[in-house]
Amino acid sequence: MSVHFGPVKGVSIGQIFSRRRDLSEAGVHAPLQAGIWGGANDGACSIVLSGGYEDDIDDLDFILYTGHGGQENKKQVADQQFTVGNQGLVLSCELKLPIRVTRGEQIANGPDHGYRYDGLYYVHKYERVKGKSGFYVCRFHLRSQSNIDQLEETLKPNLKTSYERAPRSEVTYEKIKRIRENTKKIKMMYDYKCQVCETKLDVPSGDPISIGAHIKGVGRPSNGPDVVENMLCLCPNHHAQFDRYSFYIDPVTYEIRGLNLYENKKLFTHEKHFIDKQFLKYHFEEYQRRN
Amino acid sequence: MSVHFGPVKGVSIGQIFSRRRDLSEAGVHAPLQAGIWGGANDGACSIVLSGGYEDDIDDLDFILYTGHGGQENKKQVADQQFTVGNQGLVLSCELKLPIRVTRGEQIANGPDHGYRYDGLYYVHKYERVKGKSGFYVCRFHLRSQSNIDQLEETLKPNLKTSYERAPRSEVTYEKIKRIRENTKKIKMMYDYKCQVCETKLDVPSGDPISIGAHIKGVGRPSNGPDVVENMLCLCPNHHAQFDRYSFYIDPVTYEIRGLNLYENKKLFTHEKHFIDKQFLKYHFEEYQRRN
Repeated sequence: MSVHFGPVKGVSIGQIFSRRRDLSEAGVHAPLQAGIWGGANDGACSIVLSGGYEDDIDDLDFILYTGHGGQENKKQVADQQFTVGNQGLVLSCELKLPIRVTRGEQIANGPDHGYRYDGLYYVHKYERVKGKSGFYVCRFHLRSQSNIDQLEETLKPNLKTSYERAPRSEVTYEKIKRIRENTKKIKMMYDYKCQVCETKLDVPSGDPISIGAHIKGVGRPSNGPDVVENMLCLCPNHHAQFDRYSFYIDPVTYEIRGLNLYENKKLFTHEKHFIDKQFLKYHFEEYQRRN
Repeated sequence: MSVHFGPVKGVSIGQIFSRRRDLSEAGVHAPLQAGIWGGANDGACSIVLSGGYEDDIDDLDFILYTGHGGQENKKQVADQQFTVGNQGLVLSCELKLPIRVTRGEQIANGPDHGYRYDGLYYVHKYERVKGKSGFYVCRFHLRSQSNIDQLEETLKPNLKTSYERAPRSEVTYEKIKRIRENTKKIKMMYDYKCQVCETKLDVPSGDPISIGAHIKGVGRPSNGPDVVENMLCLCPNHHAQFDRYSFYIDPVTYEIRGLNLYENKKLFTHEKHFIDKQFLKYHFEEYQRRN
């Protein structure tokens, strides 16, 4: 069966399939064993979560999904690579392709019996990090197209009785207000100039392009605080590279490390901007897991 | 009533309200006349579409929404500014806040009678362009959180009998395959280097960061073709500025115009990359509408 993206006609979110074979015949997930359907040529269109990877995190609407490979007898014994299905998920991230997610009875957020189709998710980030085993694993951050309330409501009839909602920061008015103020504050403080390259990107209408970037991410899984002490004003290029751990900022000297063009340059900082070193330290540690 | 983001408890997508007062009392859209609820301090949390702006485009899942202001007796007689509600929508774009959309009986995609709540949308782009009147209007590109099939299915009982699905390019396997190949092709051709600044942004895992950017956008409303002749390889910074019309590329000489740092520099091009001048011309004309 050729790779097919998006919803499957006649299959609704929350629907139960007794066996992998039924999932396959319905066209939800063709392979009978592999967790990822799709590869380097097509992108990945579907994954099945059925346990077996110690680095997985599953909050129902948010999944930290470990790629495949490097296991023997269900133990991680080698590094994973961005090949086959893992490369498929990379492509799906780059092209913003929807991925069908199915959960099996083996996992906490799965159904009591069989496999449950849980709708479409998007990969918004991928990375290669040292997992619990000490070997490199490919990690994919997936977010549901539905918000958590919708999703719980739809899946409720087929969630395990032991299901517990993961703690998550609700998007409340106060939170939004604070984020807005901090984003604005940091951008204004630096007059929209990047703290790495000191570039200011003007546009014909509206504020210059810049990003109020969190040093320790506020989203899952980092759950950093949304405070100015945890923020930098960056251009999109250096934001993308900071976020992907191409470079770090020395937590003691504020010198930039890992960028040829700005190697050892001191981060441009405003006298009134106190950056909490613990967040730079956290970012540096994550950098080390990837480099 | 203070601005409130996201779904409203007890209100479902497709629900009909007889009058603006009912919408207001339900907490969907508090103002009784204004089309935008929210402003510069809070962001905008809700809009009502009820006609009256000649530059609006409404495809149900995609809306080109004209901001408010500059009208007298329902005619555009002055330029619009990014103030009040318009500034609220800018903020909602920057912070990726969800916006409730309600359609009135006055418009083609509205209900037969009254007002219909159509769920959450996100502003993914905003700009200030010369409208049909010749005056500048603020334009917001909104996309529904739901895909078009879901949305039509949910709203079907309360769509006008004259409702016609807008032509749209379906995300099919073939389309995705082509986009993938072109994106990859253009990035490989330039070895992930930006055609403006010739920067290459390395990352620890995966391909360097670069964007296969369409000169005439493939999405609505431009509907440009997805061909390499309509593409450039750009870094995120210059992609953002190109997309926001901070600069253009002279369709005859390929010289960059509008960027201080690269003014009159010739675009870096590969001998095998044929760029179709008609797309540069289209982009230049759009640049002129904004500058």
